[in-house]
Amino acid sequence: MAAAAPACIDTLRIDGARLWASLMELARIGATPKGGVCRLALSDLDRQGRDLVGRWATEAGMTLSVDRIGNGFMRRPGRNDRLPAVMTGSHIDTQPTGGKFDGNYGVLAGLEVVRTLNDHGLTTEAPIELAWWTNEEGSRFVPVMMGSGVFAGAFTLEHAHAARDLDGHSVKDELQRIGYLGADRPGARAVGCYFETHIEQGPVLEDHGVTIGVVGGVLGIRWYDCTVTGLEAHAGPTPMALRRDALQVATRLMQEVVAIAHRHGPHGRGTVGMVQVFPNSRNVIPGRVKFSIDLRNASDALVGAMDADLRGVAAKLAADTGLPIGIEPVSDYPAQAFHPECIAAVQRAATKLGYSHMPVVSGAGHDAVYLARVAPTGMIFIPCKDGISHNEIEDAQPEHLEAGANVLLHAMLERAGVAG
Amino acid sequence: MAAAAPACIDTLRIDGARLWASLMELARIGATPKGGVCRLALSDLDRQGRDLVGRWATEAGMTLSVDRIGNGFMRRPGRNDRLPAVMTGSHIDTQPTGGKFDGNYGVLAGLEVVRTLNDHGLTTEAPIELAWWTNEEGSRFVPVMMGSGVFAGAFTLEHAHAARDLDGHSVKDELQRIGYLGADRPGARAVGCYFETHIEQGPVLEDHGVTIGVVGGVLGIRWYDCTVTGLEAHAGPTPMALRRDALQVATRLMQEVVAIAHRHGPHGRGTVGMVQVFPNSRNVIPGRVKFSIDLRNASDALVGAMDADLRGVAAKLAADTGLPIGIEPVSDYPAQAFHPECIAAVQRAATKLGYSHMPVVSGAGHDAVYLARVAPTGMIFIPCKDGISHNEIEDAQPEHLEAGANVLLHAMLERAGVAG
Repeated sequence: MAAAAPACIDTLRIDGARLWASLMELARIGATPKGGVCRLALSDLDRQGRDLVGRWATEAGMTLSVDRIGNGFMRRPGRNDRLPAVMTGSHIDTQPTGGKFDGNYGVLAGLEVVRTLNDHGLTTEAPIELAWWTNEEGSRFVPVMMGSGVFAGAFTLEHAHAARDLDGHSVKDELQRIGYLGADRPGARAVGCYFETHIEQGPVLEDHGVTIGVVGGVLGIRWYDCTVTGLEAHAGPTPMALRRDALQVATRLMQEVVAIAHRHGPHGRGTVGMVQVFPNSRNVIPGRVKFSIDLRNASDALVGAMDADLRGVAAKLAADTGLPIGIEPVSDYPAQAFHPECIAAVQRAATKLGYSHMPVVSGAGHDAVYLARVAPTGMIFIPCKDGISHNEIEDAQPEHLEAGANVLLHAMLERAGVAG
Repeated sequence: MAAAAPACIDTLRIDGARLWASLMELARIGATPKGGVCRLALSDLDRQGRDLVGRWATEAGMTLSVDRIGNGFMRRPGRNDRLPAVMTGSHIDTQPTGGKFDGNYGVLAGLEVVRTLNDHGLTTEAPIELAWWTNEEGSRFVPVMMGSGVFAGAFTLEHAHAARDLDGHSVKDELQRIGYLGADRPGARAVGCYFETHIEQGPVLEDHGVTIGVVGGVLGIRWYDCTVTGLEAHAGPTPMALRRDALQVATRLMQEVVAIAHRHGPHGRGTVGMVQVFPNSRNVIPGRVKFSIDLRNASDALVGAMDADLRGVAAKLAADTGLPIGIEPVSDYPAQAFHPECIAAVQRAATKLGYSHMPVVSGAGHDAVYLARVAPTGMIFIPCKDGISHNEIEDAQPEHLEAGANVLLHAMLERAGVAG
């Protein structure tokens, strides 16, 4: 659909200083003393963030419309405005002790793309849309990735509207209160393709000294609660041979969770994050240990293989020790591969711009995972300091932020086409 | 010092039914719906228990005196009343969800010995004393084994008096309130030797099908707090190779605690009872894990060898993984061997009475541990169901309770001598 691009397009670059200034200005809304941001979904601060981004978009000539779950769509018309939009976006809500970049970068990188097109008087063939998605973080309301999930039909608008925070406020009431209960039916927009720029939230790019991560997809996840039942007894009077120590069996299985991840590499991940010991007393042999298991891998087949491995290991351990081991499924998020054409567009853009790049997978969920259910989707990762996010010390380098936005610009231009 | 015993002495037996009836009557004070006892130290219920036992002792012709930490001494004169007393005793306070036998059995077995001597009009050469020791359990006030500890000079009366419960009540005020702040200076009594009868609180006797445990001593104990420091990170975006997972290192050390106990058998014991994971979130790789270590063995040298083993293993693990491991000593209770003559007296009594018996060690602390610092001491264990105590389902068989009291009777008679 793309018209022949003018020769000058290849040299087009976003304005890194302007992007940085916008990031810092948005980060003032909900700024924490430690340098982070607390801007919970549908709070007064979230309203202020939405107001600011909406104003910037309007100033950049875009029109804002809001749907019934509060997703905001800022549209820049294309020459052929009936074409489905080339969309980008992310979220502007944060964790309670969140950083300046998670989500916010994806929204403001998209704004910077539009500002750059404006600077050069460029019209795209297809329209361009910039979205913020409501409540990606899920800190205040569950489920997480709420706005994009409703948009993609992963769950219903009614389900999302009914979610309540700890104070009993519902999503619907809070949307109304902050003025962002829109009229549009979620998912009613035509999306030609979707790109999302995001800090990696992991250490891989930094570890490799690479600027751009070309994201191939998002890992599938299975969560379990595991319980090992032994016999609570006094640590003193009970000889080793007569113990039924639930923790000693549980720790062997906790080791196996990591071994399973290594057996199903390179993308296999296994984590025990949460442990409860009963009765949790210094001189009592644990009678019961409950712990979480988080398994991830690049395809549902690989996650399934890890699941089978886990169950086999646990059954053998239970048989060997005589202690019952219960494994209860908690959640199951399928793996999501991104679209080959979108992946290729990101890779081509990074190559053209001369940035070091590598294929990566996303271990965490993003709005792009749900968008991938309704449109060809790709993601662009940039490094974040020490791989840390969901933390007030979350940090990213201006040159990486700029590079990611340039890749977004050129990937979107490739897909939208330049009208000349 | 013993005069020649009358020939009938060898056939002397306590009254098992009377012992059982007394145990059941005392267990009504603080009885819980689940069949246990809650009689916390220096509570109104503890007063009622003391009143009842004191009344029984008085009815059995004994004189009661109370010292300044509330220990009660019930004395039956000897023919040569200037000889140091042959003493027995235990405690009548319980855990919040305690059983009918822990402590109470040791006191009432001693009472039954005196009642039996009365039944047969027997006078001993040396006086016999029966003690209850204040606050053995330590549930309401610390330190544990408070009354016997003050008696033996392990810590001062002032220190014990100043201890407060969670509501701010001091030991001294509560002793006064319940009428058991006596006048005697703790430790001012001459103790010729001390025997204590107790349920095993462990599974060894039951496992061996043996009635009497001849206790050789009490294991030495060292308590530690161990902290492994890693790096908190998202479970999703962090590949296995780039993790610094504190729990994975901590679980290896938890396994080693048990391996160390096995390497220092047969009495080595190693327990991890308490675990805290930070931040303890399902999808966050643990950044820090803190856990308790409890090491026990039959001599201070063996406990010291386990300590060195632990430190060596931890240092190697820290070097191998690059994660710092801190080991903080919390408490150190030396091992306490009982007196060869008292051990032999218990063994001879069990042999004479035809009860199956075996040498055992006590893994838990008892008042006898402190008494052993001031007088030759021995202990008699009997089985308890499934080795369970500190639990409302704590249980013991009447024939075992009877057997233990018979062994106590004959061991005390051997040491006190029968005047005829």
